Amino acid sequence: MKDTIMDIPTYDDMLAAHDRIALHVRRTPVRVSDHLNDLTGAQMFFKCENFQEPGAFKARGAANAVFGLDAAQAERGVATHSSGNHASCLSYAAMRRGIPCNVVMPHTAPQAKKDTVARYGGKITECDPSTTAREATFVRVQAETGGDFVHPYNDPRVIAGQGTCSREFMEQTDGLDVVAAPIGGGGMISGTCLTLSTLAPETQVIAAEPDQADDAYRSLQAGYIIADDAPETIADGLKVPLKDLTWHFVSNHVSEIFTASEQEIVASMKLAWKHLRIVLEPSSAVPLACVLKNPGTFAGKRVGIIVTGGNVDLDRLPWVQGGQGDDR
Amino acid sequence: MKDTIMDIPTYDDMLAAHDRIALHVRRTPVRVSDHLNDLTGAQMFFKCENFQEPGAFKARGAANAVFGLDAAQAERGVATHSSGNHASCLSYAAMRRGIPCNVVMPHTAPQAKKDTVARYGGKITECDPSTTAREATFVRVQAETGGDFVHPYNDPRVIAGQGTCSREFMEQTDGLDVVAAPIGGGGMISGTCLTLSTLAPETQVIAAEPDQADDAYRSLQAGYIIADDAPETIADGLKVPLKDLTWHFVSNHVSEIFTASEQEIVASMKLAWKHLRIVLEPSSAVPLACVLKNPGTFAGKRVGIIVTGGNVDLDRLPWVQGGQGDDR
Repeated sequence: MKDTIMDIPTYDDMLAAHDRIALHVRRTPVRVSDHLNDLTGAQMFFKCENFQEPGAFKARGAANAVFGLDAAQAERGVATHSSGNHASCLSYAAMRRGIPCNVVMPHTAPQAKKDTVARYGGKITECDPSTTAREATFVRVQAETGGDFVHPYNDPRVIAGQGTCSREFMEQTDGLDVVAAPIGGGGMISGTCLTLSTLAPETQVIAAEPDQADDAYRSLQAGYIIADDAPETIADGLKVPLKDLTWHFVSNHVSEIFTASEQEIVASMKLAWKHLRIVLEPSSAVPLACVLKNPGTFAGKRVGIIVTGGNVDLDRLPWVQGGQGDDR
Repeated sequence: MKDTIMDIPTYDDMLAAHDRIALHVRRTPVRVSDHLNDLTGAQMFFKCENFQEPGAFKARGAANAVFGLDAAQAERGVATHSSGNHASCLSYAAMRRGIPCNVVMPHTAPQAKKDTVARYGGKITECDPSTTAREATFVRVQAETGGDFVHPYNDPRVIAGQGTCSREFMEQTDGLDVVAAPIGGGGMISGTCLTLSTLAPETQVIAAEPDQADDAYRSLQAGYIIADDAPETIADGLKVPLKDLTWHFVSNHVSEIFTASEQEIVASMKLAWKHLRIVLEPSSAVPLACVLKNPGTFAGKRVGIIVTGGNVDLDRLPWVQGGQGDDR
């Protein structure tokens, strides 16, 4: 592990990240839907990070870390543990630079995410689905490979990279009253806070979390990090806990954390597929679910939602009989 | 019916349409995927007309017709028959102008498309799913309502409107070697020919059609319009035949028509959902299916595909057991 882990990234780090990654990530489009505006009473904007090549916003932080390595570090490559999208995105960035990438993934991760990692040349070591098991396996893998550890979210390079998303979002929308994003480990939310606290301090940052993995919500209430081991939710990207660096941003800059039930998440996912006509994963539907159930907070406002990812197993859709949401 | 039906629209008509509809349709984004480029060997660009508010390119032609009506005509509204997307799009345009819209739809049209028409205030009269039944029912409805007939494709206003799509496409991509689009009645293909024959005459226009509804393919081979009554294909937007006006453009400007099987269409639809992460309907997957099966024609070229629509019944996906493609 790096001893720089509590280096708080700055706005200038985000600007530098944006230059560094410009050739390696997409400036994703913003989708709107009159119908979703009618349903929510808000003016909704959806930043389509599911349109990054590897299908998630984590392409940004991963590219910033990989392309910021010096030549000696780059030769040994990178290594990480991830519930899926960070693994794909780090593999993708490493492939673009031509360096090795080792990833530890829970064996329960969706097959679509494992396939994507493999396609980008990432080497997968599987582990049990708890946070503790994942971190223990990682220590072993990293010792064997010597890859530079790029944490999925608790890394200043990663947070600075994720912050580039809301910089684009503000340019593309001419400003927003609220930016909402899902919160798992808090990497995207932290990057959003990093950028907006300087660029648009009047814009609220709101986080959205599954009821069944509401550790960030309870942390913000308690005033300290509460970490659950292996929570169960269809929003598979949001099972990991906050860490010191993301807690710094969440505790200082997040206005509020809302939560939604599994049923609300699935219904919002289907609604977004139907009316935005984009493929987004369950984690990315949590903010819309929270906006729909809290009209008093959002109605009449310009609300930006970061659609964090779109890697879904199309053979196991949660609203289809036999799909993954069926027994919940 | 109008006696102006054989008025061939001009490039200037397309330019005027683009100005007329600018406030009422979206300049849709273009999606790319490194992975689909690898699979096809081409440089692929996907123009996302599924992102129009009513979910299809037909928003363009419909808006051009509706907003081009004089006040007296507008008071009596518009009327049409359509397998679905034209009905939704005409209803949407009429709603925006605040005028009545009557539509004749086959009772077999997907529920999602009927719902959309109703949501936009269109009044639906159902008919049997054959072309002859549809046209007979329409004559009655139009006589009763006096609405201005906006044919789904064989109308110069509609073709000029659809032509605005490839004008944007060329601007957004800095030029293409090929533009491919699905062909049913030929409205989008005709608009594409109209625009590109002036704007980019070196760009090939290629049409894509289901094997099971290959009347345009056979027409181009024969040199005259061959119309099938009620062909069966999962690509429900492509069941209608060419008419005189669209035949003019197809016979004069289309380089080639390729066809694909039902299985190839479904596989390409799923591939696009997975890698473009957009929701597109079966009709819109036909061009990708044709590119994948004819690499000799497309490899090494800059290929633009018009993603014509995204209105899908999410409870009946063709690759899911019990879905609509299951018994084919």
